[in-house]
Amino acid sequence: MFGIWGHNSAAEITYYGLHALQHRGQDGAGIATTNGTELNIHKGMGLLNDVFERAEFSKLPGHAAIGHVRYPSGGEGSINDVQPFLFRSQSENVAIAHDGAIMNKNELRTELESQGSILQTSADPEILAHLMKQKGRKVSRDTIIEALRKIVGAYAFLIMTDDKLYAALGSRGIRPLSIGKLKDSYVVASETCAFDIIGAKFEREVMPGELVEISDEGIKSTRFALREQRALCAMEYVYLSRPDSDLNHVNVHASRKRMGIELAKEAPIEADVVTGVPDSSISAAIGYAEESGLPYEIGIIKNRYIGRTFIQPTQELREQGVKMKLSPVRGIVEGKRVVMIDDSIVRGTTSRRIVRMLKEAGAKEVHVRIASPLITDPCYYGVDMSTKEELIAANHTLEEIGQIIEADSIAFLSVDGLEQAIVKDKTINQGICNACMTGKYPVTYNHVTETASK
Amino acid sequence: MFGIWGHNSAAEITYYGLHALQHRGQDGAGIATTNGTELNIHKGMGLLNDVFERAEFSKLPGHAAIGHVRYPSGGEGSINDVQPFLFRSQSENVAIAHDGAIMNKNELRTELESQGSILQTSADPEILAHLMKQKGRKVSRDTIIEALRKIVGAYAFLIMTDDKLYAALGSRGIRPLSIGKLKDSYVVASETCAFDIIGAKFEREVMPGELVEISDEGIKSTRFALREQRALCAMEYVYLSRPDSDLNHVNVHASRKRMGIELAKEAPIEADVVTGVPDSSISAAIGYAEESGLPYEIGIIKNRYIGRTFIQPTQELREQGVKMKLSPVRGIVEGKRVVMIDDSIVRGTTSRRIVRMLKEAGAKEVHVRIASPLITDPCYYGVDMSTKEELIAANHTLEEIGQIIEADSIAFLSVDGLEQAIVKDKTINQGICNACMTGKYPVTYNHVTETASK
Amino acid sequence: MFGIWGHNSAAEITYYGLHALQHRGQDGAGIATTNGTELNIHKGMGLLNDVFERAEFSKLPGHAAIGHVRYPSGGEGSINDVQPFLFRSQSENVAIAHDGAIMNKNELRTELESQGSILQTSADPEILAHLMKQKGRKVSRDTIIEALRKIVGAYAFLIMTDDKLYAALGSRGIRPLSIGKLKDSYVVASETCAFDIIGAKFEREVMPGELVEISDEGIKSTRFALREQRALCAMEYVYLSRPDSDLNHVNVHASRKRMGIELAKEAPIEADVVTGVPDSSISAAIGYAEESGLPYEIGIIKNRYIGRTFIQPTQELREQGVKMKLSPVRGIVEGKRVVMIDDSIVRGTTSRRIVRMLKEAGAKEVHVRIASPLITDPCYYGVDMSTKEELIAANHTLEEIGQIIEADSIAFLSVDGLEQAIVKDKTINQGICNACMTGKYPVTYNHVTETASK
Amino acid sequence: MFGIWGHNSAAEITYYGLHALQHRGQDGAGIATTNGTELNIHKGMGLLNDVFERAEFSKLPGHAAIGHVRYPSGGEGSINDVQPFLFRSQSENVAIAHDGAIMNKNELRTELESQGSILQTSADPEILAHLMKQKGRKVSRDTIIEALRKIVGAYAFLIMTDDKLYAALGSRGIRPLSIGKLKDSYVVASETCAFDIIGAKFEREVMPGELVEISDEGIKSTRFALREQRALCAMEYVYLSRPDSDLNHVNVHASRKRMGIELAKEAPIEADVVTGVPDSSISAAIGYAEESGLPYEIGIIKNRYIGRTFIQPTQELREQGVKMKLSPVRGIVEGKRVVMIDDSIVRGTTSRRIVRMLKEAGAKEVHVRIASPLITDPCYYGVDMSTKEELIAANHTLEEIGQIIEADSIAFLSVDGLEQAIVKDKTINQGICNACMTGKYPVTYNHVTETASK
Repeated sequence: MFGIWGHNSAAEITYYGLHALQHRGQDGAGIATTNGTELNIHKGMGLLNDVFERAEFSKLPGHAAIGHVRYPSGGEGSINDVQPFLFRSQSENVAIAHDGAIMNKNELRTELESQGSILQTSADPEILAHLMKQKGRKVSRDTIIEALRKIVGAYAFLIMTDDKLYAALGSRGIRPLSIGKLKDSYVVASETCAFDIIGAKFEREVMPGELVEISDEGIKSTRFALREQRALCAMEYVYLSRPDSDLNHVNVHASRKRMGIELAKEAPIEADVVTGVPDSSISAAIGYAEESGLPYEIGIIKNRYIGRTFIQPTQELREQGVKMKLSPVRGIVEGKRVVMIDDSIVRGTTSRRIVRMLKEAGAKEVHVRIASPLITDPCYYGVDMSTKEELIAANHTLEEIGQIIEADSIAFLSVDGLEQAIVKDKTINQGICNACMTGKYPVTYNHVTETASK
Repeated sequence: MFGIWGHNSAAEITYYGLHALQHRGQDGAGIATTNGTELNIHKGMGLLNDVFERAEFSKLPGHAAIGHVRYPSGGEGSINDVQPFLFRSQSENVAIAHDGAIMNKNELRTELESQGSILQTSADPEILAHLMKQKGRKVSRDTIIEALRKIVGAYAFLIMTDDKLYAALGSRGIRPLSIGKLKDSYVVASETCAFDIIGAKFEREVMPGELVEISDEGIKSTRFALREQRALCAMEYVYLSRPDSDLNHVNVHASRKRMGIELAKEAPIEADVVTGVPDSSISAAIGYAEESGLPYEIGIIKNRYIGRTFIQPTQELREQGVKMKLSPVRGIVEGKRVVMIDDSIVRGTTSRRIVRMLKEAGAKEVHVRIASPLITDPCYYGVDMSTKEELIAANHTLEEIGQIIEADSIAFLSVDGLEQAIVKDKTINQGICNACMTGKYPVTYNHVTETASK
Repeated sequence: MFGIWGHNSAAEITYYGLHALQHRGQDGAGIATTNGTELNIHKGMGLLNDVFERAEFSKLPGHAAIGHVRYPSGGEGSINDVQPFLFRSQSENVAIAHDGAIMNKNELRTELESQGSILQTSADPEILAHLMKQKGRKVSRDTIIEALRKIVGAYAFLIMTDDKLYAALGSRGIRPLSIGKLKDSYVVASETCAFDIIGAKFEREVMPGELVEISDEGIKSTRFALREQRALCAMEYVYLSRPDSDLNHVNVHASRKRMGIELAKEAPIEADVVTGVPDSSISAAIGYAEESGLPYEIGIIKNRYIGRTFIQPTQELREQGVKMKLSPVRGIVEGKRVVMIDDSIVRGTTSRRIVRMLKEAGAKEVHVRIASPLITDPCYYGVDMSTKEELIAANHTLEEIGQIIEADSIAFLSVDGLEQAIVKDKTINQGICNACMTGKYPVTYNHVTETASK
Repeated sequence: MFGIWGHNSAAEITYYGLHALQHRGQDGAGIATTNGTELNIHKGMGLLNDVFERAEFSKLPGHAAIGHVRYPSGGEGSINDVQPFLFRSQSENVAIAHDGAIMNKNELRTELESQGSILQTSADPEILAHLMKQKGRKVSRDTIIEALRKIVGAYAFLIMTDDKLYAALGSRGIRPLSIGKLKDSYVVASETCAFDIIGAKFEREVMPGELVEISDEGIKSTRFALREQRALCAMEYVYLSRPDSDLNHVNVHASRKRMGIELAKEAPIEADVVTGVPDSSISAAIGYAEESGLPYEIGIIKNRYIGRTFIQPTQELREQGVKMKLSPVRGIVEGKRVVMIDDSIVRGTTSRRIVRMLKEAGAKEVHVRIASPLITDPCYYGVDMSTKEELIAANHTLEEIGQIIEADSIAFLSVDGLEQAIVKDKTINQGICNACMTGKYPVTYNHVTETASK
């Protein structure tokens, strides 16, 4: 998500901001702008580059914009699910983008439909729109807050009307959301890497339970929930965010390198070479190598040109040794004892494939070191992970996992180690959500998390 | 370039092989196959993924194939320039792919046209085809050798007929070309990374002046030129090849790391952090950091999603600070003395942009260290570099270059340092071509290199 | 519009039915199907052929379907305007297609929004959906009738729920809508040509003010408005419908031929040859020729291959004589006195272009005969015509029109002549709407038609 | 084919000229232009509208152009077969377009390849190019004539060099080719309808065995073969050409109407209504109706929107009565005795389908009247017809044909009747080729027509 208020080229700036955030969603992209009287939008399926051409910008005039790149969160995905969502009425226009998950979505939908509301999709922005506009009211700070208080979940919303841009973060701040300044304009983004690409400066984090209101009169802040301990999603640091982003004042690459360093302290091993699974494990691998004194080498390489249209090898060719996304570097691993650093293990199938690949390329030993703890519980906050049944760590001991993925040894970073690698300064509310590793959910909603806690 | 003989899924294997070679050319791609009686081909503009869909494979039957990814070597580029080239006649079919440059192309063309030949393009494969088939002869080892002896230049050819696959390398071996084995099949590729992706094993290099003939009867070798010192293009190691490839028995990543190590020895500097310009300078940066004892960090990041359809920022937005391909990581470089490692400097414009970008992001000092020597002379062997007028090192002193790119200090790796980093074992003919750094051209042709030597 | 209930291949049949109706709208197309529990839809911009591929049908399972081809009724047109519209709620699914115009749209929208409804578009089907589902009620005969009674306008609706297909026609029957039978299935279509293409037999017209309910239990009829004189749009006969359709028991080609015959009686002229402006005036031209005894010849030809992507000639080339859609046949018209039959004149610009074209091709005289009366008033019922300011006949005398279009003589069919050509049997309620020729509007709504009557 | 010399907007004019000729080939299209020093070309698969966008014209500068629309003459068809063909050499550029067939193609190819020529395709223009440029000569009147004398067949060539446009017609003038004038420019086209669309005036026919040379110095004519009786393809009149074209001074629509009149005289029948199979039989049907005194009605309608991407109905749906291209008009044919006029019968399958369709729609009797003679022999001159085995009239008596197509009666126009309908003025060399109806081939080549004559 990206938003800007007060810039002549709002749509273009948003395009570049979304480019920096493209890793957060490759399924669809959209930008909505306002010039004070009318909202315009352009959106489509696919990468930003597939959706936008220069000509689009002339159809997106205005001094303010919000944009979104879509992560496929289940279902087939269609243009109808691509955000932002636009709601035009005779009296006003509203655009909404969302990152996160509403846990009581079904209950809210039932209530709205029983009152005669027609919901065109099951998407979160539409739920929020109907809640805000109940009884024909216009969107304002008050109607937004009233609506947000009905919503249970982990969320970050951008809401743009004809004359204001609102940014709202859920009560525990599970989703990331930062504010920056670009000369006289305010920008809002999921990650600070979007500020660097456009030349903006980081200003501050949106706080848990805060509604920020940006307009030509500047910025106003309202708190709609009690001040609570921040619980920023740990997986953002582990693999979701870009290494160059700062999340809640912590640089992601640096945190990953520290995860590698902690891991080397917790689980050292005698070996010849350290290698990381590209791309997100490279920082941790460099950290592990640095701490362990072993050389860091490129033992696994990622094919950069595998896109949407890549033709998957047939089962037969895969068995004959044809690789897809990753391939081993025989010249590096042949005859060597390899420490293979990965950022996390969800189902274990990818890890086993990589271990086998390294051995087939001649590695003598493969020692798997995972730079995050065992994932034992599902996420209800919008991060697409597997169900409990599919999570290897929810159903197997550490020893079994090592056997399943065929590693010569295996170790995971401890929960404490992870926290140490990330949280540097508790005075600025730097807590993380590690529910998927501990089962301790910071936000709960009866039927959803009850099931989970069993 | 990639070729295979003796595999049921020749077209698919070639597709995966070309995937590993995609970095060598993104402008066009093609695959030709033979089933012994007829040649089929599919080619198109753009990336391999844009050109091929699964359905294509069923139209490319056969047990042998050659494929090519095209690098835009001047001109607009059209489908007519995409290789392989196919030549069907009533008596036989021939497909040809080429990597390199024919220096006496104009003279050969004049001669052919004066005999009534019609050339549809000015592409090298067509020149070779006409030379081979003069007077209506069929393609054979003899006609190929006769044709190659008329050609002056740096070249690697793959020639596929109904019953044979030929691989030919120019007299000094300037272009890379390796042979591998995939079970009972032979494969030929520009880089060994294409072997790793398909599970093949490296067998040997094609030698300078060697014509290799692969058929159902196995492999035969003929030498068509005197044995000479190998002069493999140094820029393949510096930035052209993939880090996981072995060229002439030397791993590219390892050679780059050694370039960084040599550079740290030759040109140390007091600083806080070492960073590399992605992607090709990362290995050298890690080497420099290792040797110098400074920490390696991600100070510059590359936007992965910039493709053919990316919208370039307007001049106005660029001036306001919007970045395109690369952006700085403010959290890493702010207030720091940064060693910025790049693989080479051609015109200097990119380097200046990066130095400025780092300073705008708060770097206190930027020390530029280039992991290859000054490029002072043009390449006539098919590597697309600038003309002498455009080469910054051909027209400026080292000091001037430092000023132009606004670096606080600057240093280049020495020619000796480069050779030490690459050549490890002269007994296996590991010489390199460094003509673009020294003006010593291993292959010359009157009007072409005479101009150069002035 | 096309609908079917009770057929295994409902989507395919609808595709072919819509093909026969493609002339009614080339801007967009869509088909929705139900299998009793879920509704599926596929729609897109452009011609049916552009929107549908065979694979789509497998995603449109079910025994019932409704489809629509869209005529661009103002605005740019976007995928959001393409029908049918789908409304999914937790309790039921509804699909709606519409032909016509709701005259009190703004008033209904204001009322709905003041109650908290969010309308995503300004399209008629969405107004109907909200009216039907007010207070969270399910769609049924009663809720449909209650909603229709709030709507003022000329309309034909198809409404498909999980278990029923409804067809509704406005109180005066201004829009065409017929029922057919295909073995055991019921089909509904705007024109009977859609029955011929699929091999169905015409059953009966939907009557003014009738709601037809089709389900597995057969067909039920409810009258929601008083029985009134039918006022079927005369322009459907004049040029909108396909010549092979029967509208309200009158064949369109035959009615056009009679218009030509009546016109020859009312306005004979001494001439050498009769020609028609393709395509819709050919039938009238043949009628005129038959009655007048003059030979019918092809004096004007239409370029069949002018589609969406046709490049319009520049002004300069047009002045040099380059034709676009129509060109004259010099061999036929050179030196002749030509009777040029056209179906109607709206603004007069096209007519003038054709007259000039014929003269430039050598016609000695051009006598314009129009097979319908002068159009003096705008249409408020969904037929896209010009505003009163643009209608040539609203602002000029017959003599002036003749001068403006540069005809040697001009005549229009009389209002009586038109009625005689169309209405053959008043016992079956065969009245027509000729409001655009007489200003007598069969359905009125205060602010809309008051303006008109001035 | 279309060509122009001496016009600023040569490419655009050619685009519009080709539009008028689009019915002659929908498989591919191309335009080549010259500005005196360089040739440019743009071509592609599909309709003209698919291939050209306005931007293309700026890449096609020059005062002269030739263009071509491709009819799929066997084979899959690929971009390589689309004309014009371009041949660039160091000394000159040549573009060639062709309509017709070279009968001794294989022999010429063998001869050329034995001399070392490489032919990239098996297309006629390439044969001509190699013949013209043998021994490295430049293209001139002399080399063209020398080449044409080696070619046996029916052909019309357009040859454009840097400074001249040549038009050549085979010795009997089997293919149509006319010259027109557009102000100071000369234009050449297969049919005169291309002149009408651009506002040009017909000047004269290219004569059999004539080579016309157009340049800035005007027009020159050379005869390269003895003057012989013209034998213009009769099928051009029967169905290939557009009704508004004049071929060899005879209007096509008028000739078709006369075919209908002759047919009515030769084969009258008692019936209620005359209808034609759209589009090419409408003129003949009007003629038949006029002569017989029966009313002409629209009993069969053609779906205008069936293009390349139309989804063919499944066998099952076809059996259920779903129509594809043509549908019957039940309101017209039900209970009637119908005379169905068609232009020709090749295999008979289409005719049977239409007869059945009319009967299923309620026709009491269907009397088939064909406005051309029985087709008994294959065409070797480039018109795509069936082989002798497939021609219904080559293998069945008239009576059998009637039974096969299930007609109540059947009659064909006589060979004499056809000639009378077409040839009006023998003093201007108006002979036709009716080889496919009589087996009398005007141009013969040993192995080809010997087989035929058996």
